[in-house]
Amino acid sequence: MAARDLRIRRVAIDTWRESVAYLHRDCESVRAAGFQALSKVTVRANGLSIAAVLNVVDDAGIVQPGELGLSEDAFVRLGLAAGSAASVAPAEPPDSLPALHRKIAGERLGREDFHAIVADIAAARYTKIELAAFVVATNGYDLEREEVLFLTEAMIDAGRRLDWQQAVRGGPVVDKHCIGGIPGNRTSMLVVPIVTAHGMLCPKTSSRAITSPAGTADTMEVLAEVEMPFERLQQIVRATNGCLAWGGTAGLSPADDILISVERPLGIDSPGQMVASILSKKIAAGSTHLVLDIPVGPSAKVRSMPAAQRLRKLFEYVATHLNLQLDVMITDGSQPIGHGIGPVLEARDVMRVLRNDPAGPADLREKALRLAGRVIEFDPDVRGGDGWRIARDILESGRALAQMEAIIDAQGRRAAPPPLGALTHEVAAARDGHVAAIDNLQLARIARLAGAPQVPGAGVDLLRKVGDRVQAGDTLYRIHACYPADAGFARDLAGHDSGYRVADATPESR
Amino acid sequence: MAARDLRIRRVAIDTWRESVAYLHRDCESVRAAGFQALSKVTVRANGLSIAAVLNVVDDAGIVQPGELGLSEDAFVRLGLAAGSAASVAPAEPPDSLPALHRKIAGERLGREDFHAIVADIAAARYTKIELAAFVVATNGYDLEREEVLFLTEAMIDAGRRLDWQQAVRGGPVVDKHCIGGIPGNRTSMLVVPIVTAHGMLCPKTSSRAITSPAGTADTMEVLAEVEMPFERLQQIVRATNGCLAWGGTAGLSPADDILISVERPLGIDSPGQMVASILSKKIAAGSTHLVLDIPVGPSAKVRSMPAAQRLRKLFEYVATHLNLQLDVMITDGSQPIGHGIGPVLEARDVMRVLRNDPAGPADLREKALRLAGRVIEFDPDVRGGDGWRIARDILESGRALAQMEAIIDAQGRRAAPPPLGALTHEVAAARDGHVAAIDNLQLARIARLAGAPQVPGAGVDLLRKVGDRVQAGDTLYRIHACYPADAGFARDLAGHDSGYRVADATPESR
Repeated sequence: MAARDLRIRRVAIDTWRESVAYLHRDCESVRAAGFQALSKVTVRANGLSIAAVLNVVDDAGIVQPGELGLSEDAFVRLGLAAGSAASVAPAEPPDSLPALHRKIAGERLGREDFHAIVADIAAARYTKIELAAFVVATNGYDLEREEVLFLTEAMIDAGRRLDWQQAVRGGPVVDKHCIGGIPGNRTSMLVVPIVTAHGMLCPKTSSRAITSPAGTADTMEVLAEVEMPFERLQQIVRATNGCLAWGGTAGLSPADDILISVERPLGIDSPGQMVASILSKKIAAGSTHLVLDIPVGPSAKVRSMPAAQRLRKLFEYVATHLNLQLDVMITDGSQPIGHGIGPVLEARDVMRVLRNDPAGPADLREKALRLAGRVIEFDPDVRGGDGWRIARDILESGRALAQMEAIIDAQGRRAAPPPLGALTHEVAAARDGHVAAIDNLQLARIARLAGAPQVPGAGVDLLRKVGDRVQAGDTLYRIHACYPADAGFARDLAGHDSGYRVADATPESR
Repeated sequence: MAARDLRIRRVAIDTWRESVAYLHRDCESVRAAGFQALSKVTVRANGLSIAAVLNVVDDAGIVQPGELGLSEDAFVRLGLAAGSAASVAPAEPPDSLPALHRKIAGERLGREDFHAIVADIAAARYTKIELAAFVVATNGYDLEREEVLFLTEAMIDAGRRLDWQQAVRGGPVVDKHCIGGIPGNRTSMLVVPIVTAHGMLCPKTSSRAITSPAGTADTMEVLAEVEMPFERLQQIVRATNGCLAWGGTAGLSPADDILISVERPLGIDSPGQMVASILSKKIAAGSTHLVLDIPVGPSAKVRSMPAAQRLRKLFEYVATHLNLQLDVMITDGSQPIGHGIGPVLEARDVMRVLRNDPAGPADLREKALRLAGRVIEFDPDVRGGDGWRIARDILESGRALAQMEAIIDAQGRRAAPPPLGALTHEVAAARDGHVAAIDNLQLARIARLAGAPQVPGAGVDLLRKVGDRVQAGDTLYRIHACYPADAGFARDLAGHDSGYRVADATPESR
């Protein structure tokens, strides 16, 4: 019961993770039943099928009546050549829709329900609207912790799972992760060299930035290749004990990647979804031991200690049931970490710390040592409390730097790292006083408007941090951009709200 | 801080109520900050601005680097000629987003919050994802009744409001409305002629079908024009006391029209949203007295009497606070009303009842008389209990028919009504017995797949109703279609599940 004999045409429109099918209004199928604009359809070709949203087109230059236009996402997902024969039918609603409706109505769902929902999401059978409905219906602490466990399990089962046990022979496969929200917080690029220099296996895959000015993958990419097939990743880990690669090609939690495309625009990052997202990816990546960083601060994701403790317990509950050794660290998230915000600037900070350069930011160094120390204490041969000292010795001796250079070489060193943005604008203090607060969110916005992370050399370089004394006219931070339009966007936003609060009281009196 | 000097281009893609801006990847603005695919942007031109979702295009045939492509919806909304100069900037988040987030978090919102949210929705500043989030967060009985009142007020305030007081000089402006869900339930086309023949003012505007096989506007359109400017509508109402027109052009509750575009695909029709949607449109249309039909049945929107009573009280609470006289009738929604499902078939049923033709469906006639009777009892000169008899007299005397003909002529009689679909398929009883149940939802689906309402002559003609005895092979209903593909879709679905249940027990034993 489908319109057949359509020819696939690639329509060069990037709809960002929503598969769109374009049919001409004069195409016979458009008249049928559910075939109005924004209806869901199933596209079938050569034994494959994908779900898509239908847009009706009146311009034969985009699609002709006998053609089936596919947006970039849909074309790639289906994976067939232009001109292939395809058919379109009104989409059957996903099997899990009744479970979604029960969740929307506030019911508690079971293990099977979450498996069905996540399988449908991973297979791209949900529309953006249905995804948004799921995200909102499972928001806040709406999910019981048992439901979070089911959601996590379902996300793991929907993707690929890596296994490093042959390499570690029963030893720990370690990882560290931060729940995010703090600009400049590039501790992974220090923790991985330190703990792998200690001899631990740490095959770290990271995400690119979605709403932040830089992800670990974006920053590492300033120095080395980060996209590689899984087989190559295995070779690198065998050679160096670790890696700092992009996790996107691994297919570890495809449902999570799709859910994120809705959570981020909504600004929703609810505890249950965060726990399921992070733990499913770590377990699918084969980690057995994880140190988790939860920063707390007025402009961080978690705003209070009680909220952080509640979130910690939820992480611990799910991790325990999934056999993941978890050590949670609640850290200071009151301001950005380090000086630079943006890939090139953050890579600079990381390399300065590795080189024991006095210009390296002390807060980034200290935080990375604390995290690395906790990871090192997963080693059964290390005494509790000795981790920080071991980590510091590895860093100060230059072994961490050597290890980083080895990982960079193994992944493929960038011959010509991207340059720092040459268009600069300095934001100055309007008055004497001291820096009382820096708004993580506003600085992240300014760095993004400057072009980060798409333009690696763009970003913000913080010259003053909380507690520093300033005089009127002193530079608080410098914006770097590569294009005049970007420079203008960022300058305007900083002019509207610098993100800094300079107050009277001396830092001593705080 | 915007990319300026872009030329508007109309992109002939129907994205159904989501404004999409298409920018070429090589356009300077695309690189900037939030300008990734699916980001929200603000389009400004000639002092006007609209919000849109950004799609990035790699085909200069769709848009060139210096152009700003607008989807049909966006182009119409902005209302400027192709080639006009425009600028694009990253969208500021709507002012009401914090209120939305508080609602998602489960908080109770105040009057100002709802006004801000609805104003942003009406101005198309919400994305589909944000709309879905609002719909889910206000789902079920999540809204306190006071919040439903605030939502209704906000919806009224966001649109145009009609005033008929000059015409009625303090008398009632009456309306009747059904919450929907019952195929064939075209009582408005009987109630309006009857009550206007009684001398009451009933300026009825109706919707087109969205997920059902026919709306009142679709069915009336078989007989007469239904789309007309408001000034013309006023003339018609002055001449005939009533009308049966499409409400879409009146702009009575623009926020509601936008919310519906998300509620329907999600299959969400929650009490609070239903009450706000219906009452805001009635009050904006100037009605002072309303009879509301709530059908109850196993495949109706409302499934039990307690649920219907709870919904009734919510309607009454809001109506009372907004000074609308409301009379709620809870009716039998256990099966479709009348014989025909689909515009041409339903118009046929209506005209048979108006002509007192014995072939007219008795259930449609009886239900319309009951509803019209209750409307007539809003007349202060009518004794309680006399309404039904007065309505029946008007119908039997032919005055209702004459009134309907007058309204048809006033609106513009269709010279050549669309024909009934000539491609037919009969669905027969598989066994002897009696018809025990008819599934409203399944029959609606079959009629839609047959082409209704886009193809007016398509639909389903029910030859047997609940309680009728049948023998194996007897025709239960006949599917009408105009196009072979549609006929195939509908036949396949009916073959999968006819929507009829034929059981042993005789109707007498029920």
